[in-house]
Amino acid sequence: MELKQIISSIKDKQPNIKSVFFVGCGASKAELYPAKYFLEGHANDLRVSLYTSNEFNFATPISVNETSIVITCSLGGATPESVTATAKAKELGAHVIAVTHVEGSALTNDADYVVFHGFEANYAAKMEKMTKVLGLAVEILNQFEGYEHYDKMQDGFSKIYDLIEKAVSSVGPVAKAFAESYKDDEVIYVMSSGATHEVAYSFSICLLMEMQWINSGTFHDGEFFHGPFEVVDKDVPFLLLMNDGRTREMDSRALDFLNRFDAKTTVVDAKDYGLGSAIASEVVDYFNPMLISGVLRVYAEQLAIVRNHPLTKRRYMWKLEY
Amino acid sequence: MELKQIISSIKDKQPNIKSVFFVGCGASKAELYPAKYFLEGHANDLRVSLYTSNEFNFATPISVNETSIVITCSLGGATPESVTATAKAKELGAHVIAVTHVEGSALTNDADYVVFHGFEANYAAKMEKMTKVLGLAVEILNQFEGYEHYDKMQDGFSKIYDLIEKAVSSVGPVAKAFAESYKDDEVIYVMSSGATHEVAYSFSICLLMEMQWINSGTFHDGEFFHGPFEVVDKDVPFLLLMNDGRTREMDSRALDFLNRFDAKTTVVDAKDYGLGSAIASEVVDYFNPMLISGVLRVYAEQLAIVRNHPLTKRRYMWKLEY
Repeated sequence: MELKQIISSIKDKQPNIKSVFFVGCGASKAELYPAKYFLEGHANDLRVSLYTSNEFNFATPISVNETSIVITCSLGGATPESVTATAKAKELGAHVIAVTHVEGSALTNDADYVVFHGFEANYAAKMEKMTKVLGLAVEILNQFEGYEHYDKMQDGFSKIYDLIEKAVSSVGPVAKAFAESYKDDEVIYVMSSGATHEVAYSFSICLLMEMQWINSGTFHDGEFFHGPFEVVDKDVPFLLLMNDGRTREMDSRALDFLNRFDAKTTVVDAKDYGLGSAIASEVVDYFNPMLISGVLRVYAEQLAIVRNHPLTKRRYMWKLEY
Repeated sequence: MELKQIISSIKDKQPNIKSVFFVGCGASKAELYPAKYFLEGHANDLRVSLYTSNEFNFATPISVNETSIVITCSLGGATPESVTATAKAKELGAHVIAVTHVEGSALTNDADYVVFHGFEANYAAKMEKMTKVLGLAVEILNQFEGYEHYDKMQDGFSKIYDLIEKAVSSVGPVAKAFAESYKDDEVIYVMSSGATHEVAYSFSICLLMEMQWINSGTFHDGEFFHGPFEVVDKDVPFLLLMNDGRTREMDSRALDFLNRFDAKTTVVDAKDYGLGSAIASEVVDYFNPMLISGVLRVYAEQLAIVRNHPLTKRRYMWKLEY
């Protein structure tokens, strides 16, 4: 079923949807963030929340009921906390949409609707999860409240995958330079703003900590000036993700500060990949995370190569019970 | 004006409040979190959001209007981003409550209501900001939707300050042991769950990074198993904040893992300070952050002493324009 049909099917059953819950863990939580950020900013009536799955399970919001849409997400569809959250949402009467790469996975058991996304084919396919969840949020807003830039958003959806593939095709040399420069660092900080805030989070906790065992911290670059910036000094390693859109001023302010005190700074900037030339300014904010995540994947791959530490290497995950 | 009167005054002017926005920066953003977490979990109709101030300023949610309550917060009342957010909220017609320690500060200029809180007197006074904002959230819920545990919450408010003072009076030796053990660490991770999630964040970005220039990372302990736990190894330094309440199971699971692989682990546990014996189980979750923050203040002070690095020492903040 298309995203549009999923939401219209829910609306047929329940015209009075009041709340939308996004629920997932780790990278799959982070990939729900652009949709949550979009809907929270543009809805007048819908309530919008994002929970890590076990928060949703142990401290379930009282408003989860037949007036709720719950969107759960898990790449492999087997994440136990997210499977439990899906079952709990269903039990409470919510309209449940499971987003996963694996057909027939446990996540789909209690879902009313399932959205499958690609992964292996190419970099664009890896961004389908985040993009389709944003697509669901756009449908929810448009069908329940109306959204004046709906067509511009659809135009963006029609272009983003090609933009990602084009961006990654040219990024090899700068990604390799990043990897060479940061490969022995004790700690790497990652920050961004706007819809890309949790792309920084995901790169920090998943790509660096989980897949490379590199120490890392992450925060919103608007928060940078209210604490973290005191660790800045010559050669302290930062990775700054710069948006094209309304929050760019925050990213730029952080960059100015990093440069002023000679921090070791790498910038991944959506403007370098032509995002704003292709996508309308009214909606461009929400396509930064997909483009930047695609580019960052190459950065992570290069880091894995120069460190001789494959992105699939784990000591605990998939190997132990915990 | 008392918290209860502030909310009833707003209700007199606007019985149809739809949204509540919490807006602040750094520690003052983190101290809004327990209130946001409480209201998001217990409201059926009210929309609830928490923004770092410049997100609110640059990508202002369209729903900020005369049906909104906006609560801004700044200890000294001079944080430029939060002063701007207060003005913006007022300009958009919202009912604005400024929470600050400094009477007559810029934050109060455009506020309809001002809540002052203590700071210097003792540890309990330092927790007034967080506690009073939670008090506002409880009033909002009770007056606009009703809240069945309102009396138990009031009972908690009547006890929490004494509990904090009692806790800090006994914590010296363990805080000193923490400081001695962690003083030379390259990086310290801090995590928690539930209402205490952003106490971990605040300790990481403010107490460690800002006030001690120690590298740090922070995440929800439910997220720990979806990325960060791969950095765990013998003697990797962690600080785990354990709640008494519904999310304790997540904290315990993280502790088990840390112990299993011999991470250097310090636990600050609300159960060690009698929180659950004093405060009703239906509301105890929401008093963990105040108690644990009070205790953590002593940990930070001990770290400052053994490292000969006063908590007031800065290289950029208050010294430069940025």
